[in-house]
Amino acid sequence: MTKQQLIENIRRHESFLCVGLDSDRKKLPRHLLGEDDPIFAFNKAIIDATAPYCVAYKPNVAFYECEGVDGWVSLERTVAYLKKHYPDHLIIADAKRGDIGNTSAMYARCFFEQLDVDALTIAPYMGEDSVTPFLGYPGKWVILLALTSNKGSHDFQMTANGEGQRLFEEVIRKSQQWADDERMMYVVGATQGNLFEDIRRVAPRHFLLVPGVGAQGGSLEEVCKYGMTDECGLLVNSSRGIIFADTSEQFARAAAEKARELQQQMKQLLYR
Amino acid sequence: MTKQQLIENIRRHESFLCVGLDSDRKKLPRHLLGEDDPIFAFNKAIIDATAPYCVAYKPNVAFYECEGVDGWVSLERTVAYLKKHYPDHLIIADAKRGDIGNTSAMYARCFFEQLDVDALTIAPYMGEDSVTPFLGYPGKWVILLALTSNKGSHDFQMTANGEGQRLFEEVIRKSQQWADDERMMYVVGATQGNLFEDIRRVAPRHFLLVPGVGAQGGSLEEVCKYGMTDECGLLVNSSRGIIFADTSEQFARAAAEKARELQQQMKQLLYR
Repeated sequence: MTKQQLIENIRRHESFLCVGLDSDRKKLPRHLLGEDDPIFAFNKAIIDATAPYCVAYKPNVAFYECEGVDGWVSLERTVAYLKKHYPDHLIIADAKRGDIGNTSAMYARCFFEQLDVDALTIAPYMGEDSVTPFLGYPGKWVILLALTSNKGSHDFQMTANGEGQRLFEEVIRKSQQWADDERMMYVVGATQGNLFEDIRRVAPRHFLLVPGVGAQGGSLEEVCKYGMTDECGLLVNSSRGIIFADTSEQFARAAAEKARELQQQMKQLLYR
Repeated sequence: MTKQQLIENIRRHESFLCVGLDSDRKKLPRHLLGEDDPIFAFNKAIIDATAPYCVAYKPNVAFYECEGVDGWVSLERTVAYLKKHYPDHLIIADAKRGDIGNTSAMYARCFFEQLDVDALTIAPYMGEDSVTPFLGYPGKWVILLALTSNKGSHDFQMTANGEGQRLFEEVIRKSQQWADDERMMYVVGATQGNLFEDIRRVAPRHFLLVPGVGAQGGSLEEVCKYGMTDECGLLVNSSRGIIFADTSEQFARAAAEKARELQQQMKQLLYR
């Protein structure tokens, strides 16, 4: 998917919502546990219910991997279902991979060829040659961790170098030599509020993938105030707050309602 | 496995070799491709041939994950085979995971419960709460990326903060507040030679997992000169140089020969 297509999808849906498919088997509605593939059955229902209100889905790979072989089957089915029925929705594998060149090349094959998602989250610690193998796929996106939403983000990401530049800024600056805003996005946690201004100084045109709204406490208003561009430039993710809004047989309807609430807020913020 | 057990295994084998199971399906000996599970058939033969000369195996998860469901089956079989036939060999899943707390907890479940390996490589970028969920498993090890063997290691890991402390040193210093040398090791690339002295100043007693000997050009002599402690304190990994030494029907014999060569060098270095 190109940047322009993403922007058009956002306009059409009046939404920049990404629904996080953190489909923890232990939290699924109990009535689904008798299904052949409970995680896929859950995802399918969530996707059908929320697709009108969002432009992206983000399966968090950990929640599939921890189920071993069965989990990979659920993940493959989920991606295939999205590609067939909702081809305009961006599919982000949240995997936070990153390794030496030949290993990153294998992960790229895994996610961009075998699984065939549109975008992948990548950890920057190992530097350029750990990232560039993911950039060789036309139409596919690298989403690099910059400033994450968790408490530990302050341990290293906020460390300033001799020139007063913080690590997350250095990551954003240096990585722009590897690819531009047509191929790369950055993860910036919603919990970082006012730091969005600093981010926009370094990356004025890039899309930012923003986790941390909802369960983790970030504010949508604040993110938009400091982070939104005239192309929108944001994909705001909510996972648990949508998909586990209710665990009765009405779970999909409850998820749709939560997604619609966010979409309505986003619509206001887009046209402000 | 405790640190003491690892040290005893090193003494008994007169080796601190870790064999990297980067079992790229595209590089397997052609006569194995007709097998039901070629990757497992390859690993099994490599393991049986090299076990006398090493103390650890390190499957690189990327090479399994990129085969999808089949790859996970091969990985599970490989780990189960090692646990049954070579219970004294440390099994390291080289996965370089790291995510917000609840997601790291899922990865921990995946690798330490479901797959049940002894150790896992972890990326430090997201800080404390991305690492601590992996520390809740008695007898299991976290191997944190500190200074990697690739060219890109210079992009961020070598950046000095206002006090002149480089990022890899900050990672090692700070992470010692989370766990000690009985639960944590660090990845330090063999290509970093003289920097081992700096590492030992910050982490005098920790085991270091050292990739980069062989195909990547690091020197075993130099690593030992600057990095070895009186408990050895090193696990030196070789992957391609051993497992793909030969791709004829004699591949396992060739791998054994390469592993034995390294073990012989290690024996000399251990008793120097």
